[in-house]
Formats: sequence, structure tokens, C-alpha cells
Amino acid sequence: MTGTLWGIGIGPGDPELLTAKAIRLLGALPVLAWPAPLDGDGMARTIAAAYIPTDKIEIPIRLSFRPDRDDTDAAYGRAAETIAAHLTAGRDVGILCEGDPLFFGSFIYVLNRLRDRFPVQVVPGISSPMAAAAVAVKPLSLLEDAVAIIPATRSDDQILALLAPADSIVIMKVGRHLPRVKALLDRLGLLAGAVAVERATWPEQRLLPLAEATELSYFSLILVHK
Amino acid sequence: MTGTLWGIGIGPGDPELLTAKAIRLLGALPVLAWPAPLDGDGMARTIAAAYIPTDKIEIPIRLSFRPDRDDTDAAYGRAAETIAAHLTAGRDVGILCEGDPLFFGSFIYVLNRLRDRFPVQVVPGISSPMAAAAVAVKPLSLLEDAVAIIPATRSDDQILALLAPADSIVIMKVGRHLPRVKALLDRLGLLAGAVAVERATWPEQRLLPLAEATELSYFSLILVHK
Repeated sequence: MTGTLWGIGIGPGDPELLTAKAIRLLGALPVLAWPAPLDGDGMARTIAAAYIPTDKIEIPIRLSFRPDRDDTDAAYGRAAETIAAHLTAGRDVGILCEGDPLFFGSFIYVLNRLRDRFPVQVVPGISSPMAAAAVAVKPLSLLEDAVAIIPATRSDDQILALLAPADSIVIMKVGRHLPRVKALLDRLGLLAGAVAVERATWPEQRLLPLAEATELSYFSLILVHK
Repeated sequence: MTGTLWGIGIGPGDPELLTAKAIRLLGALPVLAWPAPLDGDGMARTIAAAYIPTDKIEIPIRLSFRPDRDDTDAAYGRAAETIAAHLTAGRDVGILCEGDPLFFGSFIYVLNRLRDRFPVQVVPGISSPMAAAAVAVKPLSLLEDAVAIIPATRSDDQILALLAPADSIVIMKVGRHLPRVKALLDRLGLLAGAVAVERATWPEQRLLPLAEATELSYFSLILVHK
């Protein structure tokens, strides 16, 4: 009997935004793995800390802040083998995922390495567009609205092609792309109605009109509704 | 002291997918309102039933299954006045919302009527694209992927314009639009990789390759990754 690999969404930051199912599994599963910086616990472990009993086997998956593809491959390759050993021994393993496991989640790196060998279950989590909309009390979509979710790392031309036919736009991972994205939205007449949300639902959360934003972290997003 | 209007996301269907915050508020708020059919409790009240104490003041917001704009305006107009009376009397009111309150949520009809008169708080919920991806164990997005979320009610030309520049596509509210959407995806070579999920996380949930789907309810969506 092999164990099951669980991808567990733990939401955007507020520990009260874990689901009842995620909380139950954090208590029940014998092994938990979580993405982490080179030192310390990292965001996922921090969000879930209150729900993790002290008797767990824990596997930090350590990566530098902006890893290249080789770093990522190496770290997840090693983690997948450690996790596979527990699964082979019949122990279920939960992977903690900020937000939702399958929406820009590093869980996908583990999933792609192990899904052919072990049973997999995923527990969805609150993701950052919904968390940011809640913080801003700003509707994302209604009725026939189409929503485009666009990483700010894409080129201007790509962002424009995605944005033009949509009614509602979420621009993620803003960080150093802020001036370029602001200029692009300004050209389209969309700057005035746009809001920026940084670290939604964390104690240090910021909500501001995009026009007033002069710097935003990587953990920021922009909401626009035409 | 007026009360606060709370939009409370209760997730896609599985009662274990409510957040700890939603569960706490269902226990604590004195008045709860929920969208409902002309008879009975409706989906939102059904999902949350186990968390609702018997001493609540409850306000069903009753609508036929496919209301027109006038029906919706009339029902939400009446509900907003009932809710406003409680808020004016200092009682907090929670609106139960399937999925997320601000992502295709009827909470927006209440919000638009009352946000200028009362304080508002929103608790995000697990929404159907993330729930369906979890059921299918199918990644929505990674790294620089752009995601387009498109109601099937849009025209072919609009769907094509939204779909063409995206890496990942979620087509919502499929229902009677199934044959048209299948034909459109087939023309683009995207039918073979597409999956359909109906009533994600409900006991009667269905997951199937889109190519094999011959009918799907309104509460279905299609996931495609190029």
C-alpha cells in the first residue's frame, strides 16, 4: 500500500483562510513538505504554523528567492525523491501550497515528477486574485464578464493581446514591472480605475490606487475592470 | 452604530471547503441571507447547513432558475431593503455566496445597492476553476502562463479573441453551449486535451474528457491548457 500525495492549498496569508479540509489534513498526515527560502520556514509554513502538530516529519524544499530553472529542477528533484520514499513506505505526504496548488503553485513541480507513480489528491485553496478582490471590495466578474489573468513578466504586446478582449484583468507578480504596466494601462485609459494590492490578507497588506503606487513587491497584483 | 455587510464565500460545494473564517462568521453573525430558488433552500444554504445554528434570522433571496434582469433587480431590490433594515438596527448581516463572492457572485447585486450606506467586508471563497482543477488534478497555470476565464455564453468570435493569446483557458457556465464550444475547440486542435467538470466537489460530481461529453449542466466548466 503506497501513500497518497496531497497538494494542500493554504490560501493567501491569513491563517483563517485555510479550509476546514486543509486544517484537518495538516493534523492528520504524517509527513508535510513546504517550499522555503535557504534559511527559515518560508511563507507557506508560516501561514499554516498554528495547525501543524509537533510530531510531524517535515521536509523543507529550499530555494533561493529567484531561482533559475536548474536550481528549481535540482531542488524539486531532490525533494521528489525524499517524498517518494515516504510514499513508497505507505506514508501520506502533504505539500503545503500558498494560495491554490494548481494556480501558479510550485506543487506542480512535485506533481509532474510523481503523478505517474502514486495516487494524488488536491485540496484547492483561496488564490490571490480572489483574496485581493476581497481586500479591495472590488468585483472581479459578473454575468458574461471574461477575466484575463496575466503575469506582469509577459511582454507589452502579449499583455495587450490578452487584455484587449477581456472585461476584467488581473495582473500578477508585478514587482519591478510596475512602471511598464502603469504606462501600458495609462495608454489604454485604464490607469484611473486600477487598484494595487500587495500581500493580500497579511498584516503588512497594502491597498492603493495604482496611479499612486511607486513601488510594489513581487507579491502584488493589479485589478482592473473596464 | 450600523452593522457590517459581510459577503461570505462558502466554496464550490463540499462543506469541508469552507474557510475557518467563513465557518466562524456563520456561527457569529445574527442575520444570514442566501440566494435560493422559488422553493427550498438552494445551493448556498445547503453547502453551509452544518455550520448554521438554529437561532439565526435568515433571509432567502428567491429567484427563478434563469431570471431575467427585471426579476433579478426586483428580488435584490427587496432583499437589499430587508438587509438594510437589519444593518441600520446595528445587526451584522452575512450573505452566503457559492464559490467566491466577487467572482461571478450574486453578492455583487447586494453590494452595489448597499456599499455607499454601510461598511462592507468580504471573505473570499474557493471558486469553481480552482475546485475543478483540483478534481481533475490538472494544473491551471505555472510561471508565465496567462489564464483566460470565459463564460460560454459569449459569441464564438469573442471566445476566440480571448482564447487565442492565453496559455490556459477556463470556459464556465457551459450548459446548452456545449456543442458550439466543442466545435470551436476542435477547430483549434484543443478538443483532445480538454476536460469537463460538472458540479465540482458535490457528491454527483462528474469528470470526463470533453470529447466524450454529450450534455453538461450549467454548473459545468471546461479546462484547457495549450
